[in-house]
Amino acid sequence: MDTLVADLLAGLEEIPLIDPHSHIDPLSPVARSLEDILGYHYYTELAHSAGMSQQVLQPQVPSRERVREILRFMSHYDNTAQYRWFVEIARTFLHFPGQRVTVNDADWLYETAERVFQQLHWEAEVRQRTRLEKIFLTNEFDDPLQGFDTTVYVPCLRTDTLVFQFHQPNTRQRLAACTGIEAEDAGRVRRAFLTLMERFVNRGAKACAISLPPQFVPAPLSDAELDNALRRADSAALAPALFWLLAECCRTFQLPFDLMIGVQRRVYRHGVFQGQDLFDQRTSLIQYQELFNAFPEVLFPISVLTSNQNQELVAYSWIFPNVIVNGHWWYSNTPPYIRKDLTERITAVPKNKLIGYYSDAYKLEFVLPKYRMYRQILAEVLAAEFVRPGLLSETEAVALGRQLLYDNVRTIFRL
Amino acid sequence: MDTLVADLLAGLEEIPLIDPHSHIDPLSPVARSLEDILGYHYYTELAHSAGMSQQVLQPQVPSRERVREILRFMSHYDNTAQYRWFVEIARTFLHFPGQRVTVNDADWLYETAERVFQQLHWEAEVRQRTRLEKIFLTNEFDDPLQGFDTTVYVPCLRTDTLVFQFHQPNTRQRLAACTGIEAEDAGRVRRAFLTLMERFVNRGAKACAISLPPQFVPAPLSDAELDNALRRADSAALAPALFWLLAECCRTFQLPFDLMIGVQRRVYRHGVFQGQDLFDQRTSLIQYQELFNAFPEVLFPISVLTSNQNQELVAYSWIFPNVIVNGHWWYSNTPPYIRKDLTERITAVPKNKLIGYYSDAYKLEFVLPKYRMYRQILAEVLAAEFVRPGLLSETEAVALGRQLLYDNVRTIFRL
Amino acid sequence: MDTLVADLLAGLEEIPLIDPHSHIDPLSPVARSLEDILGYHYYTELAHSAGMSQQVLQPQVPSRERVREILRFMSHYDNTAQYRWFVEIARTFLHFPGQRVTVNDADWLYETAERVFQQLHWEAEVRQRTRLEKIFLTNEFDDPLQGFDTTVYVPCLRTDTLVFQFHQPNTRQRLAACTGIEAEDAGRVRRAFLTLMERFVNRGAKACAISLPPQFVPAPLSDAELDNALRRADSAALAPALFWLLAECCRTFQLPFDLMIGVQRRVYRHGVFQGQDLFDQRTSLIQYQELFNAFPEVLFPISVLTSNQNQELVAYSWIFPNVIVNGHWWYSNTPPYIRKDLTERITAVPKNKLIGYYSDAYKLEFVLPKYRMYRQILAEVLAAEFVRPGLLSETEAVALGRQLLYDNVRTIFRL
Repeated sequence: MDTLVADLLAGLEEIPLIDPHSHIDPLSPVARSLEDILGYHYYTELAHSAGMSQQVLQPQVPSRERVREILRFMSHYDNTAQYRWFVEIARTFLHFPGQRVTVNDADWLYETAERVFQQLHWEAEVRQRTRLEKIFLTNEFDDPLQGFDTTVYVPCLRTDTLVFQFHQPNTRQRLAACTGIEAEDAGRVRRAFLTLMERFVNRGAKACAISLPPQFVPAPLSDAELDNALRRADSAALAPALFWLLAECCRTFQLPFDLMIGVQRRVYRHGVFQGQDLFDQRTSLIQYQELFNAFPEVLFPISVLTSNQNQELVAYSWIFPNVIVNGHWWYSNTPPYIRKDLTERITAVPKNKLIGYYSDAYKLEFVLPKYRMYRQILAEVLAAEFVRPGLLSETEAVALGRQLLYDNVRTIFRL
Repeated sequence: MDTLVADLLAGLEEIPLIDPHSHIDPLSPVARSLEDILGYHYYTELAHSAGMSQQVLQPQVPSRERVREILRFMSHYDNTAQYRWFVEIARTFLHFPGQRVTVNDADWLYETAERVFQQLHWEAEVRQRTRLEKIFLTNEFDDPLQGFDTTVYVPCLRTDTLVFQFHQPNTRQRLAACTGIEAEDAGRVRRAFLTLMERFVNRGAKACAISLPPQFVPAPLSDAELDNALRRADSAALAPALFWLLAECCRTFQLPFDLMIGVQRRVYRHGVFQGQDLFDQRTSLIQYQELFNAFPEVLFPISVLTSNQNQELVAYSWIFPNVIVNGHWWYSNTPPYIRKDLTERITAVPKNKLIGYYSDAYKLEFVLPKYRMYRQILAEVLAAEFVRPGLLSETEAVALGRQLLYDNVRTIFRL
Repeated sequence: MDTLVADLLAGLEEIPLIDPHSHIDPLSPVARSLEDILGYHYYTELAHSAGMSQQVLQPQVPSRERVREILRFMSHYDNTAQYRWFVEIARTFLHFPGQRVTVNDADWLYETAERVFQQLHWEAEVRQRTRLEKIFLTNEFDDPLQGFDTTVYVPCLRTDTLVFQFHQPNTRQRLAACTGIEAEDAGRVRRAFLTLMERFVNRGAKACAISLPPQFVPAPLSDAELDNALRRADSAALAPALFWLLAECCRTFQLPFDLMIGVQRRVYRHGVFQGQDLFDQRTSLIQYQELFNAFPEVLFPISVLTSNQNQELVAYSWIFPNVIVNGHWWYSNTPPYIRKDLTERITAVPKNKLIGYYSDAYKLEFVLPKYRMYRQILAEVLAAEFVRPGLLSETEAVALGRQLLYDNVRTIFRL
């Protein structure tokens, strides 16, 4: 065991967390059963990829049965980072005594989870053990944002539907329902967007967010052109311009706009729920050059789906004051990609522009194992790039880690 | 010396090999002279790139002279992985005593090779020292598949000609000659393909294979459209559709279809034989989405030419049950790329979907040094990613290695 | 501390340098004040990216004030490789005693620099401490090339203006002024280019150079087509053809043609001076296939802007005798990219085709810290890939390093 890395890791584990991106439901933030853990698409998609039939995912199959089947197929993907997250959850939260989980543990895990997850104050306990101060949500634009503590569960306006589904009548009906505005021309769209963003800001929202396909190029339309595109319900024309309007609203409300770049939806059309999306590596941040030039006052924390695009992200963040590097997303959220991308970032981008990590979690129990994976790698990178070459002391290296894990999230999102 | 890596390597060296892709001629599987080794395009192209004139490759130049010249230029590329393969061959098979080979060794090597390679049972000895159980071939569609043991030399239908040269009368004549079918319309093409694939399967074939250019997008044609494209001998229209027909045949015969993606042929038009091909990194597996969706019953072991595309391969294999990760191809078959790509794969893709390596060899003598290079890196990766972090014991790590080297080849190709 | 790496580094530090690419002004090669160091765009752009207003870069702001402000923002980018270069300069040339520089050191550094940089023979001292034998320049085509020692400051014809600004009357006027030829048709353009290249060669020029955008595809035009494009001042048509003409001139004069591929100019339009350029990762060396085929007699030392393109560079150099690998450029000139790219190159490309590094420096003081960074990584790579696996002795490894740092520059540029 490398004692320097262990020492740095110990230092990093003292740092509280503000998790700047998740899919937590604040009305049901923790797991209720083992199925809430193993139903996470990372497990269903890996099990299916390794050979599991989707039959077992049908609602009529009993929950315990489904969990057992996903665990059975785990023996085919126990080499993955996702498997390690599950073992960490079992060990940390269920006090599972072993180092490896197999189908033989299904009943024990299922029953222990039933008991543990029903405890009073389970949510508070998970947050406390995770040292989790705040966690950002992903809220649909018509989310009522009621019934939870927004100083812990920080609202974030997710805008995919507004940008990519605006041509569908249902979207405009929902928008009308929550803003009172029939958004049928450019002026009213703008007013509706401002209205809902104001509601979000008043409820403590700290960011807008959107995921974007590889080909996407933001571009404004004149009001007349936008009116025309709205009449024709032309989604290809609408999306770049509606995105641009949202950036204008972010400027008005001083909200950072999280861009998650590169996902192609529904590539595997018969895949499991949320296990259908992939990508086309041929994308470039050059597509955003007009945006970055036009909105110097808006911060754009950017996630890229592929490690290939990391050098673009490093370079654009090195040059553009408003481009911020944000976490390790999805297909790049495994140790080899985190190690490479983090090393490239931390030696080239001003350190006040690096948001280290976010969990992307659906249930709070995932925050701990995912951040643990990240902190381990962060400790290794700090050791190799800064402490061993004599550039930083251990204390200074931990301070740099703290900036990535905590300080920058506060500064950039104005918490 | 790292004893953990050495121990793992010793364990991995016990594992027999099934090599799932080569260019071995089963009627002449081993080298007859040193020229059979140094004539391999890896050496001629590196020597030429380093400054060797192609004059020496003319047939009228005596073999010993040619070998000496390639060895002379080796002093300019003795930093490469290819050089190490040659040193391994010299040491292992010719009992060359040194650690480095230079032009001064030309006569000794040439003469020793003459003697050693002519030994009785040389082929059996090479296979035995290599622990090589089976090795897949690359067979043209009209290969007679006669005169060799198909339980050792496993036929594999190579389909490049059928897909990319079908517009040439010669291809259809050859097809007619071996199937008895004049493939002039969609129905007869389909019958001809089924006929020849049946013949291959009856002779023990375990896979179809094809190499594909970066821009290629498979797509079916209706029979009427295909009839039309056949009449016009329109190769651009034919290739995607003929490829699709072959995938249908693979489904019928339950054959995996090896896709080797990304090669651009004849880029350096005056290059040495087989040393003319390069690539355009701008390619994506998204081009294959319809194929992967349409053929859930067909396994597609996929090789990508560039390490840049490895993350796509990892992600597509993580999501699609029928996408299999296959080896390290050509320009990605050097230690830094193998190390990176293997590390990314083995931490993210279900382990039953990883085919570790294939030799791509033209002569059996190359299987050993190439697999040795791979096993060394595999041992290092297993140590760094699994044993040192406490995730696997040494025995478990070697078992994981065995799955990549042996078990998965048996399962995926139904041996 | 790794003693093997330290030993190799000590060996590498004995090797004199020939720096094959810089932006040194031979009439003012060294810094006159600290501002000449901190005004380097790497510092102004990082400071601006980290939050510094550009106001302080206005000429009316006093120099000492500007330096202080750039130093103040250094606290936000003291994690970067660029920061380390500055610390090295301060320690080596100003005898700064600390390990870290902050704004508190501003006055001391400013005043010490005033004193040290004004010393007699400062230029000679910098070159001697750097062991710098020769350094290549970047000369505009109408540079008088007078007043300096061309055996130390080696002229290099930079051709961006000729290729990309030829449609502007000013360029042709300048060309006429220095060649006496009004280049208004193909024949006269050719003569003008030959005339100026002859002048350069007579003044000791050893290379042509150009930086190229990601989309660029060289292609010849017939004289009639070129005449037509010249009449229309059609820059899109002119650039590929003028580039081709320059390659013909390089052939005539046996000059290597340095290609620096992938930069997109003025992406951040309001960025600091020289801090506006970025890139589109979607580019390929396949765009140069006709060039490489057409000019087998011309050597093309190639720099790629992104590490993504390194595998293309490795493969094209492995296959094409006239493609040379050249240094680590700009956004790829930080330790993680150098480490990766160098490792990939040194295990796959004939070693006589590898130019290890160039400084790209604007002032001589930068040559030392940049090469020091490179040599450190080179020592690590030699240790890991060659000495530790038993392939080279330490002495042989240092000799390989010498080939990359020195011998190949002499051979390739015919010094």
